[in-house]
Amino acid sequence: MSFPAIKLSLPAWLCEVLPAPEKVFVTAESRMALVIELAAANIRQGTGGPFGAAVFDLDNGRLIAPGVNLVTATCCSVAHAELVALMTAQRLVGNFSLAAAGCNVELTSSTEPCAMCLGALPWAGIRQLSCGARDSDARAVGFDEGDKPPHWPYLLEKRGIRVLRDICRPQAVAVLEQYRKQGGEIYNGKGQS
Amino acid sequence: MSFPAIKLSLPAWLCEVLPAPEKVFVTAESRMALVIELAAANIRQGTGGPFGAAVFDLDNGRLIAPGVNLVTATCCSVAHAELVALMTAQRLVGNFSLAAAGCNVELTSSTEPCAMCLGALPWAGIRQLSCGARDSDARAVGFDEGDKPPHWPYLLEKRGIRVLRDICRPQAVAVLEQYRKQGGEIYNGKGQS
Repeated sequence: MSFPAIKLSLPAWLCEVLPAPEKVFVTAESRMALVIELAAANIRQGTGGPFGAAVFDLDNGRLIAPGVNLVTATCCSVAHAELVALMTAQRLVGNFSLAAAGCNVELTSSTEPCAMCLGALPWAGIRQLSCGARDSDARAVGFDEGDKPPHWPYLLEKRGIRVLRDICRPQAVAVLEQYRKQGGEIYNGKGQS
Repeated sequence: MSFPAIKLSLPAWLCEVLPAPEKVFVTAESRMALVIELAAANIRQGTGGPFGAAVFDLDNGRLIAPGVNLVTATCCSVAHAELVALMTAQRLVGNFSLAAAGCNVELTSSTEPCAMCLGALPWAGIRQLSCGARDSDARAVGFDEGDKPPHWPYLLEKRGIRVLRDICRPQAVAVLEQYRKQGGEIYNGKGQS
């Protein structure tokens, strides 16, 4: 028996949305603005759900890797924006732990992570998580965020991962609302195609 | 800016360990025996941690997709055995939800899933989870299972995912013990390489 490799490619349109590599993102708001734009572009381009994420180097403010939700485009339930960004960053630095590779990184996410992405954070070697919309905002639109442990920001902080919440929340919520208004697919594992 | 695709390939040695495609796995124990053998082979071959998993079709007893832990081999913290098996199965059926593709599947895992893999299960469209070793067995060897919500088997059952525990637990624990005894790398995101 032989099996196909798993392959997840970022959409070609990303290069039109991303700034020049030398661009420096100094503030949490500037980093969030980029991932919200990624989420909005992912809707416009029809490549997936209304979620964007990115890994930034906190020492120099540079973007290391972007991510968008690719669940429907790649037929892969694991391809949430956060995990796409983290896996791409790990591939770029050649280490499964960004911390071990010497990187001091923030994962910026347009919406607070679902249970899967939350569970993935400690394994990825990030130092900071920055979130736009709350998980309650995602649920209000119809997305299922899964069963997260109570007090999850506290649990991340206990593991040495700083948590920033509500960064540009209104703008992040607006993208979720836009997706709902235009009748975007609310996918999960329950049986929808 | 352009970014590399994420690519996760199953090890070439898998074809030597897997049975003929027509083999039927009738019992939970027979399915667990295969994933425990995958975990053991992953240690022997030096391709990753002591964890194996597989997606089985419960209607005909056939293997759909295997998975082994590929975290160190692929520099990817997401490449846990469970997610490798699920992503491979989704690619084979061409749908991010195995249930939506018409499959009635069990995810068989040599050890109870960590917080990330647990969070991933509802999105993948599985109907049953079968586990060998307990998460306490993995922690006893030194692995971090993450922060899982209390009563997680109950929460999965509430979502329509049946949970079988302690299937061939002694044999599953033996593989974890063997990995520890031979000084296998206990990796996580904290800074080890």
